[in-house]
Amino acid sequence: MEGWEPAVVERDTSRDLTNRLRRIEGQVRGLARMVEQDAYCIDILTQVAAATRALQGVGLTLLDDHMHHCLADAARTGGTVQDSKIKEASDAIARLVRS
Amino acid sequence: MEGWEPAVVERDTSRDLTNRLRRIEGQVRGLARMVEQDAYCIDILTQVAAATRALQGVGLTLLDDHMHHCLADAARTGGTVQDSKIKEASDAIARLVRS
Amino acid sequence: MEGWEPAVVERDTSRDLTNRLRRIEGQVRGLARMVEQDAYCIDILTQVAAATRALQGVGLTLLDDHMHHCLADAARTGGTVQDSKIKEASDAIARLVRS
Amino acid sequence: MEGWEPAVVERDTSRDLTNRLRRIEGQVRGLARMVEQDAYCIDILTQVAAATRALQGVGLTLLDDHMHHCLADAARTGGTVQDSKIKEASDAIARLVRS
Repeated sequence: MEGWEPAVVERDTSRDLTNRLRRIEGQVRGLARMVEQDAYCIDILTQVAAATRALQGVGLTLLDDHMHHCLADAARTGGTVQDSKIKEASDAIARLVRS
Repeated sequence: MEGWEPAVVERDTSRDLTNRLRRIEGQVRGLARMVEQDAYCIDILTQVAAATRALQGVGLTLLDDHMHHCLADAARTGGTVQDSKIKEASDAIARLVRS
Repeated sequence: MEGWEPAVVERDTSRDLTNRLRRIEGQVRGLARMVEQDAYCIDILTQVAAATRALQGVGLTLLDDHMHHCLADAARTGGTVQDSKIKEASDAIARLVRS
Repeated sequence: MEGWEPAVVERDTSRDLTNRLRRIEGQVRGLARMVEQDAYCIDILTQVAAATRALQGVGLTLLDDHMHHCLADAARTGGTVQDSKIKEASDAIARLVRS
């Protein structure tokens, strides 16, 4: 795979993702507190669904970024680089869809 | 809904859930660090899927607990208490399935 | 589990579900046709997501109905009947959430 | 977007997908029959989860194929073709993840 450099998450996207992850971390900490304080199950479940959805949103942004950089570069390189990168992305998408 | 008391999450389950949520909080903090340190997208995505799955696991345990206590109590009370509690649970399940 | 009778899907719900399933069957047949006629991937994917969502909707209606009848009856019976029925429902919910 | 041709699903993949969709169509027809014959809710739910999972599998194969052809071609063209194709794919992935 010479000549091919794995692109990392872009600067702006990176800051946005870090902020979103900090918020999700706070949501999960809030969930632990709700459980400890015997909050009503359904209220906790509503927050669990919100945090799950926020995490999936982070996953979707990462994937979009990955396609713009790593996948696009790999496609321009072609051949086995392209094929192995697409396989890797497909597997990651399958894990997201099935999680 | 007189005579009906919303059951809270059981002691043992509560401790187990708090522990799992603390671990998930750590996973999400780790994700923010991975993004900051320019980890490879696909590796971050694998962790996002793992944290999402762990959160859904917490949701499923909460639901199971909720059915054992709140829903079972409501079913014994019957009538509108039962119906409103089942509607509430159905809505919570839909949010989990669709998140 | 003597004295406990598994309730089946209610008449009205049953007709509604059968109609929805017939429509989903038509959607899936349409999908096969789109693939055969070389429709654009993204258009096929949009229909796959719609059919998946419709199937999940059927699952959620079945679960709601199940809680109103089987689970409520089991809760009134109590004991091991209640516990085994809730375990069964929890497992079914987990399969829906994770599919 | 001159010079860019939307690739369609490959011949072999196409036959495989058509076969899988025919099977799913049969599964959905079987579900309607189970509902009509008052099968036990939980058994129907197990089949709903299986059909949902099979449909998601079709979606994942379509996405993989789409990345190998349309997305790779678009990346080699670059510019706005690449960007619009990746946006389209990201939106399709989001619909799958959230359905």
